[in-house]
Amino acid sequence: MKAFMDKDFLLNTPTAVRLYHEAAENCPIIDYHCHISPKEIYEDLKYDNITQVWLGGDHYKWRLMRCAGVEEKYITGDASAHDKFIKWAEVVGKAIGNPLYHWSHLELRRYFGYEGILNKDTAEEVWNLCNEKLRSEGFSVRGLIARSNVETICTTDDPIDSLEWHEKLAADDTIKTAVLPAWRPDKAMNLEKPDYLDYLGKLSQCSGVEILSFENLKEALSIRMDYFAARQCILSDHGMSYVMYAPASDEEVEAIFAKRLAGDTLSDEEQTIFKTAFMLFVGRKYRELGWIMQLHYGVQRDNNPVMFDRVGPDTGFDCIDNHTPIAQATAFLGALEATGDLPKTIVYSLNPSDNQAIDTMNGCFQNAESVSKIQHGSAWWFNDHFTGMTDQLTSLASLGYLAGFVGMLTDSRSFLSYPRHEYFRRILCRLLGQWVEDGMFPDDENTLNEIVRGVSYENAKRYFQFASK
Amino acid sequence: MKAFMDKDFLLNTPTAVRLYHEAAENCPIIDYHCHISPKEIYEDLKYDNITQVWLGGDHYKWRLMRCAGVEEKYITGDASAHDKFIKWAEVVGKAIGNPLYHWSHLELRRYFGYEGILNKDTAEEVWNLCNEKLRSEGFSVRGLIARSNVETICTTDDPIDSLEWHEKLAADDTIKTAVLPAWRPDKAMNLEKPDYLDYLGKLSQCSGVEILSFENLKEALSIRMDYFAARQCILSDHGMSYVMYAPASDEEVEAIFAKRLAGDTLSDEEQTIFKTAFMLFVGRKYRELGWIMQLHYGVQRDNNPVMFDRVGPDTGFDCIDNHTPIAQATAFLGALEATGDLPKTIVYSLNPSDNQAIDTMNGCFQNAESVSKIQHGSAWWFNDHFTGMTDQLTSLASLGYLAGFVGMLTDSRSFLSYPRHEYFRRILCRLLGQWVEDGMFPDDENTLNEIVRGVSYENAKRYFQFASK
Amino acid sequence: MKAFMDKDFLLNTPTAVRLYHEAAENCPIIDYHCHISPKEIYEDLKYDNITQVWLGGDHYKWRLMRCAGVEEKYITGDASAHDKFIKWAEVVGKAIGNPLYHWSHLELRRYFGYEGILNKDTAEEVWNLCNEKLRSEGFSVRGLIARSNVETICTTDDPIDSLEWHEKLAADDTIKTAVLPAWRPDKAMNLEKPDYLDYLGKLSQCSGVEILSFENLKEALSIRMDYFAARQCILSDHGMSYVMYAPASDEEVEAIFAKRLAGDTLSDEEQTIFKTAFMLFVGRKYRELGWIMQLHYGVQRDNNPVMFDRVGPDTGFDCIDNHTPIAQATAFLGALEATGDLPKTIVYSLNPSDNQAIDTMNGCFQNAESVSKIQHGSAWWFNDHFTGMTDQLTSLASLGYLAGFVGMLTDSRSFLSYPRHEYFRRILCRLLGQWVEDGMFPDDENTLNEIVRGVSYENAKRYFQFASK
Repeated sequence: MKAFMDKDFLLNTPTAVRLYHEAAENCPIIDYHCHISPKEIYEDLKYDNITQVWLGGDHYKWRLMRCAGVEEKYITGDASAHDKFIKWAEVVGKAIGNPLYHWSHLELRRYFGYEGILNKDTAEEVWNLCNEKLRSEGFSVRGLIARSNVETICTTDDPIDSLEWHEKLAADDTIKTAVLPAWRPDKAMNLEKPDYLDYLGKLSQCSGVEILSFENLKEALSIRMDYFAARQCILSDHGMSYVMYAPASDEEVEAIFAKRLAGDTLSDEEQTIFKTAFMLFVGRKYRELGWIMQLHYGVQRDNNPVMFDRVGPDTGFDCIDNHTPIAQATAFLGALEATGDLPKTIVYSLNPSDNQAIDTMNGCFQNAESVSKIQHGSAWWFNDHFTGMTDQLTSLASLGYLAGFVGMLTDSRSFLSYPRHEYFRRILCRLLGQWVEDGMFPDDENTLNEIVRGVSYENAKRYFQFASK
Repeated sequence: MKAFMDKDFLLNTPTAVRLYHEAAENCPIIDYHCHISPKEIYEDLKYDNITQVWLGGDHYKWRLMRCAGVEEKYITGDASAHDKFIKWAEVVGKAIGNPLYHWSHLELRRYFGYEGILNKDTAEEVWNLCNEKLRSEGFSVRGLIARSNVETICTTDDPIDSLEWHEKLAADDTIKTAVLPAWRPDKAMNLEKPDYLDYLGKLSQCSGVEILSFENLKEALSIRMDYFAARQCILSDHGMSYVMYAPASDEEVEAIFAKRLAGDTLSDEEQTIFKTAFMLFVGRKYRELGWIMQLHYGVQRDNNPVMFDRVGPDTGFDCIDNHTPIAQATAFLGALEATGDLPKTIVYSLNPSDNQAIDTMNGCFQNAESVSKIQHGSAWWFNDHFTGMTDQLTSLASLGYLAGFVGMLTDSRSFLSYPRHEYFRRILCRLLGQWVEDGMFPDDENTLNEIVRGVSYENAKRYFQFASK
Repeated sequence: MKAFMDKDFLLNTPTAVRLYHEAAENCPIIDYHCHISPKEIYEDLKYDNITQVWLGGDHYKWRLMRCAGVEEKYITGDASAHDKFIKWAEVVGKAIGNPLYHWSHLELRRYFGYEGILNKDTAEEVWNLCNEKLRSEGFSVRGLIARSNVETICTTDDPIDSLEWHEKLAADDTIKTAVLPAWRPDKAMNLEKPDYLDYLGKLSQCSGVEILSFENLKEALSIRMDYFAARQCILSDHGMSYVMYAPASDEEVEAIFAKRLAGDTLSDEEQTIFKTAFMLFVGRKYRELGWIMQLHYGVQRDNNPVMFDRVGPDTGFDCIDNHTPIAQATAFLGALEATGDLPKTIVYSLNPSDNQAIDTMNGCFQNAESVSKIQHGSAWWFNDHFTGMTDQLTSLASLGYLAGFVGMLTDSRSFLSYPRHEYFRRILCRLLGQWVEDGMFPDDENTLNEIVRGVSYENAKRYFQFASK
């Protein structure tokens, strides 16, 4: 029996052990997609207690607590930090098979030096230990980032964001990690939302373009993209239920947009036409700017109306969508390709049943512009666990070129989440180790190390070509 | 090499062996969903031969025989019981990888003490052995149930059922197992069926409500639900192609119902609107009564028109459906939640590709009313096998809270099917044992035993809160 | 650690080793579906170099090269044969987890006696070795087929094909392998294609029927099917995005066909109605002729408009489709069954998420006409790899009758691809070996050997009943 989470955690063959410790372990982290706050980095936020850092905004943990029947007051309510932590410890202690079990224990080991097990019996001990550490030197946000060996961080930013904190960070020589903005224009696209017109108002203001037409909207977005580009942004991101494609004439699109400006309700079809036009526009601009386009889909958001009213979005009430027609995704990429405008693209679906369709779709748009120009993004959100990552890696290897994969991202809201890169690398080395030990690939140390280092770090470095500090 | 089906069948690690024999093996069975006859239990049916008990109504076996090219006369036809059994033995003897191979051998071992292998060579020996046993003491229906350590059985009952046999069983102190009704109103919902109006006639009669409107139908169903509740029913069940959601006004629903009463044919959309209204109504009533709602979907029934005419429904001609839009399921649950009317619910899809979508959907509706108020039902029917159960457990653990799972049910028409609970428990212990031995969860005996006993028995006991005998 | 690809490649238990070498290894190959040229067989084509045979038309390899960022000139362009091979060696050398890694090394071992590893370092050595061999005796097309122990080959032929090369091959006693035509009428069905009317012109000419109506088309096809049948064809094949079913009256179908003849554009619905009528017609004719019907679906073709214009179809720009409604497939089979016209059928989806739906659908149409009359075709194209084949076999075993499976086909355009049968058989023996060693099936040598020989060879022989040479 392997000991629980020792130094060879998840590495179940000698080859896996060698690959991880030789090739993966010491690679810097490029976290090209997350949701942390550049302000908190710049201001070097300190934490009062482990509840604040672990349970303050982590809807993964909130969701698990609700599954275990915990009262909401211990989750997003007004229970004390101490009592919330005790409840969490009790729940996670029995969460066998859940990635939160692994993530939590990796974080306890890597940041707090706690090698024991977290459950209802050890909750008080861990509470005290962590809080003591958090008050000591090196446990501020910058300290946590520095000890995690993070080379580059890309945050998630709205077109109307001033990027003031990114500017300050860029000018600050005391932080060695590059903290770059990423462009996430969902609010500019989702015209079905009730507050869309308000949003356009803000966009008008910060771009200086009065938005009376789709043409104006594109102009405003262009100005903001140039603004982002001037501040080292090279990555965009889109959260979609599915990648849609319903082309229409400029006139039709303008008519739909005008209808929305007039306050009318749009049909599903009209929304789809508008969003198609929007995506084609930004896709072309990304190409022009040399940006990478990220398409995240297969999500259905805000499913619990009661809890949405009470605690708002991004609080643990989203789910996987299974309406993800690959035909439209393919048509969208094909439309950009047809005019020579397809940028480097990373495609992620939250639905693991889409893995194979995505890998084969991507293969239709590869060329010599880059190794694996069209990437199958890492197992994401609900799939960011042992089985989900193993399946994504296996599908990519079977149907594409694993050696060209840009690898892991945290997609996280927490400064303690960098061990997810470690988790990913261990799973990668385990899978490759099994193949080698099973006689399915030669035990060729150089090639294997090159592949592992590539997927852990080098490929992302080459693919994104981020500005360094 | 492990011996075939010895006492450690499927238990491939020492931890799995320990978990199964210490924590799982001796738990009573709560079989909260099956299709056995309460009349046969009350009357304590005896069997003439093994063909009667095994092949009398088991469409799983019939289907496998057809796949192997057996003539229908040996399946549902007029061949002798002996000859049917011989054909079955020949087929099952080569059915490597099929759960019927395991189920059949578990049943031979547990009930008949036969430790050998069933195939064409041993068919006569097994035929004689089983028939001899079946004629001996303790092989009646009640004897089989008693020796299976079954605490609770829920049958499947139509709203118009008198429940007379449940009443008699409740009054009979000689049976220790609680045999409770469960409410399955599919015939009251499926208004597209040719005999729907006949059915309404019967429902009118037994409820005393003349059904001239949907309002009347709801009244009749309410009366019957109260009738069921008074006879210890606390569980409902719905068999659906998918969980649909197409809300409409009361007037629209009444108009559709009136159209059907007038004998008109309804469009798909009209059917969906009616069924949505029906489900919202019963869902609210379940909540009021404190019942649990079971939603079984992902099935397409009666696909072979020739065989349907010859042998009717539930004879082995159904299949998995892959049109199972999670968006509608989520909207349906959300609509009940919005008015505070969402009962405890168990969601099952026959399509294994839905596992992850279901687990994430369920997470949107959990709260402190119960540990895992919304359950992902056990791998069901076509998925009730090694891979199917392993996948369901893995998905639930990865995306939800396995420790809160209410576990297995037989969904069976046979009194010999209780070893499917054993099969499930062995697969559960195997999976958990692997995780522990692989260093993915600590070897913490108390926690592991608590989880295993929970999923095997305790969680169901707590969740359902059945009346005991 | 197992050595890479030794004689026990993929055979990870003693039982697997025994099953493969005793039962599988020496079975002849029945390759009932491929895309090789009967003309090249008859003329006994010789190769100048390994690039010609490996990279001349193999879009699997082209696609992988594009994924790795290789320039198109080294793929379908005008680089030298030598340089193309060097690029390929570099890419494949890092293609861990991709079936091309295994296929390429199996081919190097089986045909060229090369036991090393192919990568950028060994590329020149392998180039020289292979080319030398290719110039020697026994490396012509007929030599390669003969040394592969191929009993039967079915090619893929258009209704307008003269089958002259099949006739010549049938008359040639010097070739021991039966090379039979297979009927692939996609061009006669896909009336949405721009060149459809041209195609009808050719079909008119070779059938002698002027095609002015759907009735005429059916007549022409009937004549050609009889022509094929007279030349030993017993197999048809259909490449479809999905198996559709939209029944309509003869008048409606004729009207749609007339509209197309007049040059009008058809709606999606009209196309579906026409194709349904087309498939029902050919299905009935197949039944009459005793042919087997192959339905391949789940593909979306020609997704890259730029590359389609440059290099045409079947060059590596297709992908898996995920719109594959099983309800329509079931309705189509049911419609043929209803009139007693359902032929033996093999169903393949390129979408691996369809495995379970297909296995359960097929179970609805089995009967005593054949062991496993309706077959779930082998993991195909993008799924023709370790995981894909393991999943298809596991699903078939769990939900159907693995022992009746007709097994593997190459679906290949290359005369070096017969080791894919070896690859399949090794995966089969590995899976069965694991089940036996794990105590999930008895170590009953006779039964296991019978199953393995059946799936490797005997079942196909019995099922297809090909004419032998």
